Amino acid sequence: MDVLISSATMCISPKNPLLVRSARPGSLILPKPRSPTNSVRFHRVAAVAAARATAIDLSDPEWKLKYQRDFEERFSIPHITDAFPDAEAIPSTFCVKMRSPTYINTKDRVLLKVINYSSPASAGAVCIDPDCTWIEQWVQRAGPRENIYFRPEDVKAAIVTCGGLCPGLNDVIRLIVITLEIYGVKNIVGIPFGYRGFSDKNLPEIPLSRKVVQNIHLSGGSLLGVSRGGPTVTKIVDSMEERGINMLFVLGGNGTHAGANAIHNECVKRRMKVAVVGVPKTIDNDILHMDKTFGFDTAVEEAQRAINSAYIEAHSAYHGIGVVKLMGRSSGFIAMQASLASGQVDICLIPEVPFNLHGPDGVLKHLNYLIETKGSAVVCVAEGAGQSFLENTNAKDASGNKVLGDIGVHIQQETKKYFKEIGVAADVKYIDPTYMIRAVRANASDGILCTVLGQNAVHGAFAGYSGITVGIINNHYAYLPIPEVIAYDKSVDPNSRMWHRCLTSTGQPDFL
Amino acid sequence: MDVLISSATMCISPKNPLLVRSARPGSLILPKPRSPTNSVRFHRVAAVAAARATAIDLSDPEWKLKYQRDFEERFSIPHITDAFPDAEAIPSTFCVKMRSPTYINTKDRVLLKVINYSSPASAGAVCIDPDCTWIEQWVQRAGPRENIYFRPEDVKAAIVTCGGLCPGLNDVIRLIVITLEIYGVKNIVGIPFGYRGFSDKNLPEIPLSRKVVQNIHLSGGSLLGVSRGGPTVTKIVDSMEERGINMLFVLGGNGTHAGANAIHNECVKRRMKVAVVGVPKTIDNDILHMDKTFGFDTAVEEAQRAINSAYIEAHSAYHGIGVVKLMGRSSGFIAMQASLASGQVDICLIPEVPFNLHGPDGVLKHLNYLIETKGSAVVCVAEGAGQSFLENTNAKDASGNKVLGDIGVHIQQETKKYFKEIGVAADVKYIDPTYMIRAVRANASDGILCTVLGQNAVHGAFAGYSGITVGIINNHYAYLPIPEVIAYDKSVDPNSRMWHRCLTSTGQPDFL
Amino acid sequence: MDVLISSATMCISPKNPLLVRSARPGSLILPKPRSPTNSVRFHRVAAVAAARATAIDLSDPEWKLKYQRDFEERFSIPHITDAFPDAEAIPSTFCVKMRSPTYINTKDRVLLKVINYSSPASAGAVCIDPDCTWIEQWVQRAGPRENIYFRPEDVKAAIVTCGGLCPGLNDVIRLIVITLEIYGVKNIVGIPFGYRGFSDKNLPEIPLSRKVVQNIHLSGGSLLGVSRGGPTVTKIVDSMEERGINMLFVLGGNGTHAGANAIHNECVKRRMKVAVVGVPKTIDNDILHMDKTFGFDTAVEEAQRAINSAYIEAHSAYHGIGVVKLMGRSSGFIAMQASLASGQVDICLIPEVPFNLHGPDGVLKHLNYLIETKGSAVVCVAEGAGQSFLENTNAKDASGNKVLGDIGVHIQQETKKYFKEIGVAADVKYIDPTYMIRAVRANASDGILCTVLGQNAVHGAFAGYSGITVGIINNHYAYLPIPEVIAYDKSVDPNSRMWHRCLTSTGQPDFL
Amino acid sequence: MDVLISSATMCISPKNPLLVRSARPGSLILPKPRSPTNSVRFHRVAAVAAARATAIDLSDPEWKLKYQRDFEERFSIPHITDAFPDAEAIPSTFCVKMRSPTYINTKDRVLLKVINYSSPASAGAVCIDPDCTWIEQWVQRAGPRENIYFRPEDVKAAIVTCGGLCPGLNDVIRLIVITLEIYGVKNIVGIPFGYRGFSDKNLPEIPLSRKVVQNIHLSGGSLLGVSRGGPTVTKIVDSMEERGINMLFVLGGNGTHAGANAIHNECVKRRMKVAVVGVPKTIDNDILHMDKTFGFDTAVEEAQRAINSAYIEAHSAYHGIGVVKLMGRSSGFIAMQASLASGQVDICLIPEVPFNLHGPDGVLKHLNYLIETKGSAVVCVAEGAGQSFLENTNAKDASGNKVLGDIGVHIQQETKKYFKEIGVAADVKYIDPTYMIRAVRANASDGILCTVLGQNAVHGAFAGYSGITVGIINNHYAYLPIPEVIAYDKSVDPNSRMWHRCLTSTGQPDFL
Repeated sequence: MDVLISSATMCISPKNPLLVRSARPGSLILPKPRSPTNSVRFHRVAAVAAARATAIDLSDPEWKLKYQRDFEERFSIPHITDAFPDAEAIPSTFCVKMRSPTYINTKDRVLLKVINYSSPASAGAVCIDPDCTWIEQWVQRAGPRENIYFRPEDVKAAIVTCGGLCPGLNDVIRLIVITLEIYGVKNIVGIPFGYRGFSDKNLPEIPLSRKVVQNIHLSGGSLLGVSRGGPTVTKIVDSMEERGINMLFVLGGNGTHAGANAIHNECVKRRMKVAVVGVPKTIDNDILHMDKTFGFDTAVEEAQRAINSAYIEAHSAYHGIGVVKLMGRSSGFIAMQASLASGQVDICLIPEVPFNLHGPDGVLKHLNYLIETKGSAVVCVAEGAGQSFLENTNAKDASGNKVLGDIGVHIQQETKKYFKEIGVAADVKYIDPTYMIRAVRANASDGILCTVLGQNAVHGAFAGYSGITVGIINNHYAYLPIPEVIAYDKSVDPNSRMWHRCLTSTGQPDFL
Repeated sequence: MDVLISSATMCISPKNPLLVRSARPGSLILPKPRSPTNSVRFHRVAAVAAARATAIDLSDPEWKLKYQRDFEERFSIPHITDAFPDAEAIPSTFCVKMRSPTYINTKDRVLLKVINYSSPASAGAVCIDPDCTWIEQWVQRAGPRENIYFRPEDVKAAIVTCGGLCPGLNDVIRLIVITLEIYGVKNIVGIPFGYRGFSDKNLPEIPLSRKVVQNIHLSGGSLLGVSRGGPTVTKIVDSMEERGINMLFVLGGNGTHAGANAIHNECVKRRMKVAVVGVPKTIDNDILHMDKTFGFDTAVEEAQRAINSAYIEAHSAYHGIGVVKLMGRSSGFIAMQASLASGQVDICLIPEVPFNLHGPDGVLKHLNYLIETKGSAVVCVAEGAGQSFLENTNAKDASGNKVLGDIGVHIQQETKKYFKEIGVAADVKYIDPTYMIRAVRANASDGILCTVLGQNAVHGAFAGYSGITVGIINNHYAYLPIPEVIAYDKSVDPNSRMWHRCLTSTGQPDFL
Repeated sequence: MDVLISSATMCISPKNPLLVRSARPGSLILPKPRSPTNSVRFHRVAAVAAARATAIDLSDPEWKLKYQRDFEERFSIPHITDAFPDAEAIPSTFCVKMRSPTYINTKDRVLLKVINYSSPASAGAVCIDPDCTWIEQWVQRAGPRENIYFRPEDVKAAIVTCGGLCPGLNDVIRLIVITLEIYGVKNIVGIPFGYRGFSDKNLPEIPLSRKVVQNIHLSGGSLLGVSRGGPTVTKIVDSMEERGINMLFVLGGNGTHAGANAIHNECVKRRMKVAVVGVPKTIDNDILHMDKTFGFDTAVEEAQRAINSAYIEAHSAYHGIGVVKLMGRSSGFIAMQASLASGQVDICLIPEVPFNLHGPDGVLKHLNYLIETKGSAVVCVAEGAGQSFLENTNAKDASGNKVLGDIGVHIQQETKKYFKEIGVAADVKYIDPTYMIRAVRANASDGILCTVLGQNAVHGAFAGYSGITVGIINNHYAYLPIPEVIAYDKSVDPNSRMWHRCLTSTGQPDFL
Repeated sequence: MDVLISSATMCISPKNPLLVRSARPGSLILPKPRSPTNSVRFHRVAAVAAARATAIDLSDPEWKLKYQRDFEERFSIPHITDAFPDAEAIPSTFCVKMRSPTYINTKDRVLLKVINYSSPASAGAVCIDPDCTWIEQWVQRAGPRENIYFRPEDVKAAIVTCGGLCPGLNDVIRLIVITLEIYGVKNIVGIPFGYRGFSDKNLPEIPLSRKVVQNIHLSGGSLLGVSRGGPTVTKIVDSMEERGINMLFVLGGNGTHAGANAIHNECVKRRMKVAVVGVPKTIDNDILHMDKTFGFDTAVEEAQRAINSAYIEAHSAYHGIGVVKLMGRSSGFIAMQASLASGQVDICLIPEVPFNLHGPDGVLKHLNYLIETKGSAVVCVAEGAGQSFLENTNAKDASGNKVLGDIGVHIQQETKKYFKEIGVAADVKYIDPTYMIRAVRANASDGILCTVLGQNAVHGAFAGYSGITVGIINNHYAYLPIPEVIAYDKSVDPNSRMWHRCLTSTGQPDFL
């Protein structure tokens, strides 16, 4: 049966459990709901559940071994020889002249977890059993292999960028093209405007080469264009067959990756020898297992401008309050890190940590305290925070979802109302820098991340892997099976040291 | 016997083996020479040697266990109860209002190594035995402890910044002060202009408080001033006694840390109950074991301006060649990362990788090839690269050490000479952005790093540790004994994937 | 009778004709209404009217001479000797050691108009008679005088900043303080939060000195704080008497200047020997006669970020349209200059040039043309543009003034609706960077402007002028009587070459 | 006779008096020597001389009238009808749809001088007679004319960029191309690498169109490449004939303009109907009569980074002294303006103002005073300042011209030596940001300047003018005959208010 790709915010909906399940038959993982934002408890349970993935019988003396074996199976990555056992390997054409060994041994592994918690009571502890037993969780190391499964002259590679803008898209495109050329590939194209480009006859393929991409990383945006939604997987694979594409590089978020995985499965079904490799793109940094996704660091950097503006406005006004809304639909990573980096935020609100606006422990009361003691205040709020308030306001019915859903506007309005009611002057200014952040070019740190992700995406495809994605884990690069990274959205752990550090920096109390 | 602090480039020379040895009596580690820059082989041997630290008898069936036990001992951190077994612990006064556990369990550990190499032939492999056996190497997790060994009202804390400028100094100072205040400390001072401030009577202590440090991170430099050299350890500790300082936070490089360790030992000797905590400061990123040191990320970011200028100049000139010299006395991290990030560098030269300028495989020949094929070229060279050439040039005798030692000027001159000799036009431009990079404020990423390092330095001192330093390891924060991090300078492994990625990006050949 | 200072957007309303008239008794100028935004014809008539100011009888053979005499009278500046004929001059204490002459001769003049139009049909022509007769219009040159009318030791100087933020406020404050110190003044204070600081007992004066202001220009905002509204002129002058302030420097817009002029008049009335000097502060650049006001250049520079973001978003999206709203309540200078500078704007809409959204010549039709031909479009709209539309939308009744008045949101909504109706995909993104522009620090060009304005404000006060403001005219600095610069808001002349250049750059048609 | 274009720093040497004279036969102007840098007196004499240009007999009662008539003749601009009286005008094809008049009347004029000095003793006064009589000096207003002298379909336009890099080159190229297209020109080419591109057969013409130039202004450098030197004027005009070029746009400095004028004359001589239009390009801002040249504002802006770095380094070091060398071979505009803008410079040294390093009034003595009182100091020196010292140092003989001529290095060395001799610690850091400044993209203010210059260059060519250049004068745009703008280099008047303001800001004494 065909998967209909929705026209919603993601290229292909990740919400359909069947899709995820079918995406990787035999996977032990169960599709999880998106992590709830208002229940810290549940969040941690979910995290633990994810860590277990299967029911663990701790009374079994071999449970640890079984857990590790299960984990290894889950994180093994599909290879072209799974479907084509006779696929022939040839010596790699990727060649950097040097004395020392260049290739990654296929059995190399990278550890996913690096902290040995001595007690579940330790800050940030995520434990599998009550003793917090240390269990090694290994994933595949990324990099060039000695043998490859595609002849460069036979390859037609395509790149597609889906979803919203994110700093670094051009950097990844650039390095995929350059690395493909180093392998010897001549036939490289860009699919315009996301998956849509596979079906829209008016949108021709964009020929790509080193010359074309040389300086594209100096500008934000995507050379290929982005869009959301697109045709069905069937139509996409039809189009790939027609065009003769046998390497597909997909840059996008969870939904896009679900689509990439479905494309991979469909290709296997049709017995097409195709490598489908994803590169996770989410400015929100909400992809599981990875240290960070590209663009996130740049977003935090660029958010400093908005926060500093809010600080200056608040500080220069009589009883000034600056409110900055930052990206983060279901996770507060940008808001948390940007607050930490700036040192100018008094209150940081994220989806993962519930709070009250009103009442003795509410945000507004604390704002009044700040105005009384400091004379000004800065609030940084993630767009997905406090969504529960928005359902109960009158504003909702009158204005439609868009306006209603804006927590930044809501806080601005409630703050004005509150201070008017208590008869205290307050000058509230609201800043929404979203598009100005998304559209900037990648900073140096993201530039390096993108360079390595782009190189490794090509290495993975030539090595014969498909249905995989590439990420940075504990500063090393790894290949992961797509279903494991899209099981649910990563979110800030309110018990983590990083959130505690943020609280230490802002000095804010619990708002409950 | 007293250690004389030299007036050379480091506060206290780390080169004296006795110093390092005495710094941590009973340590198994042997002082290593600085890793040689011209021998890749030796470098790897040195790295392996460091990993072993003691002779390993692989025929001993228990060698792995012994290795791990030895490692644990080496990386255990000195505690105030070592010298004062009766030191009383009190409940922590560091308190962030929240539901979830806040403190770090003292037994929590962080893994130092996270890659399981399956073969010594795998790129970047560092193995202990021929089978590349996986051995866990655990270090202490940083963070606030439930019990503390100082009453805030008894604390007089001092902060000192040594050596050259580095982005983030003010951020670290700021967070140390803010975190001390959260613990309840009222008596906080800055020692002006490095260790010199301990002895120069004309330099008064700088009183510090949240109010003073509130916005200092918005500017580069150091609020306290920096300098190199300083008085003897004896005099420093005399001064500390006189002033009543019982917490000392030291920001500096290897030499400064050697000094901090000597101060710690001297305090132990005098039975002063003092916590000495270092925060590694080296823009070159050449501190062992750590993912990176603060300021490095900003330096790589800021270096982009210089590289892009060189690219524009080279590209806009007829047969233009741009040469950029970046920081890195003994390590090429900045040059490597900046080249990777920019995507505009054709040749990257670092101290760890030897090269020829002249000859059929030399840099100049390749420059000519680039001019012929691309019309322009950009060279990025670390200041410590190719030092061997400087000894053999005529320029050396005529101009004195300063001019002679400048590899950037040397390459510029040799390039001009070469192209003149072969009768090809070449327009060579040289850029040295060093001071413009050092003096900028920290970017967001470094801002966060500094925030966490500053917080953890204070947590470490209150927890009763002394003679330690704090660093980020695999994205988590750890406390390390000073002698282990200053054994020698970290350097780029020419066999590492990161260097290979840089070569893939520049497209440069071996220059040997 | 007392002038009530309104709590509206300006410190003191400039709209009251009586105020302006009374502000400068004997002035020939008639208060003009704000220049209408929807009638180009009228605008030009108004401009011409302003140029004449009094009815000119062209049949009088001496009309030119009379015009010049009248002009000179209008632009003569009030001096302390007007009210205190016996006021004694002393040699200036402002002394820069140098060989060449330092002082400005009091009779030096600067020309206001520098183009000799040969015909009323020439682009941008503003003529007084049908022959476009050239008439010299001289104003007073600013700068230090050889004689001063205040003894530095007797001076208590106060600085006040009113209205909204504008880049450069701190620069002007800084230079006023530094220049006062060079004259020898020791008693300098800042009045906190605009005119409000004169009456709010909880807001103490801020002592100012070179040490305090040394680095304040490195940050945006205002060290003194700003606010709108404030007490009556009577109360302000009462407060000045009480505090002993005899030099008052006022940074603000038209309303603030009207207030400053009223304060000057009140002081004259009370026979207080006080110098009141204004420095025009309007990011919109809508002050008459001046080349530009401080902060404007920075605003245009900073607006580039927003426009480029809109361009990148539009360009990377399928049928992307980016809409940027920039400051400019009654004038389109920022929108015009920012569009010109960026080279990325397709449609620039300003208050001075009427346009239709709908219809065959409307903006929406042209947007569709751009989407069809280029695939994307960028619109830059001044906040005061197209206000007439906002009265007729349904949105108005439902949402209240705030939402209704937002032309950016209106264009975004109408564009979405239009493309939906014609069945063409369009991805519309809206950016409002206002607060992020206002809060940045001044760029170098504004830094210089502020430096010179600040110096000249002090020179003017010491020279004994009061009721004046300082501005840059044809790249030279001049003193002007306040009533002449606040007669009405300066606006973009749709017949000017600069607007034509903008149209040449955008390629947009008339939207009528 | 043929003019040999030198391979020196300018495309064509402006130093040959014959060249300038022959460039504009009948011109009354006498070639002036470059304004001497060490004699303020002479400088002012030269300026006055230039203002007079011919000997003025003040006893002649008609001297004023004669002066004006002479001035008008000097600043009249060559027109195609001078050589081709029958050249036919056609209605302009430049058409912006609008209601109001679009064209500039040919008789419109712009005033060159706008200050009426009332006495020669007034600061900055430049007077022609002892009474400082006011004399109107009119130049031609730039802009589109109603009639044009080229049919767009017959035009082949060429653009060439000469000399060193300067921010804004791409902006000017871009607007020339876009404006030519608006007129209807299809045949537009770039000559690669300056005048060299006319003769080097290996360098093909670069086809230009709106599509090609759309985003080139987002990057620094020159799309066409630059170089110095080139073939003889004869060969250039031969090449133009061969290629059929009848509009030539030349971007460069004095030398390049001398070449452009010689090309214009040669074309007239050969009776080629060609328009040669210059756009002055000198980052030093040393072109006569103009408010500023493009790139200058950006240079001042970008220099802030270097100055701030020097300030931070100096401020953070014990007895720190930062020395920044900025561009300015014969004029100190960049150093002066950058010092004024930064507010962080203690000593500003420029070629126009002589100074001593040593001795009781020397720079070094003042540095010692600053170290004693402030603890640190920042020096900003123009590259052309203090050249006399360099001839007398030993360094000169040993190192050759290049090293010797570096006043920045010289000051650094002398400062170190001085403080060593007097036994005071001093930490001297030297920054040379030249290439990092030249290579940046134009800021918004320069972007607008370039836009208007580019548009007006094309309007001038179509209007039939040749041998002209375009500049901004008192904020309005004008056409000037080339010989008048290259008579000598503009320099900072040490008697001007701007230099006084700089001294007020730095607080430095005379160093003589």
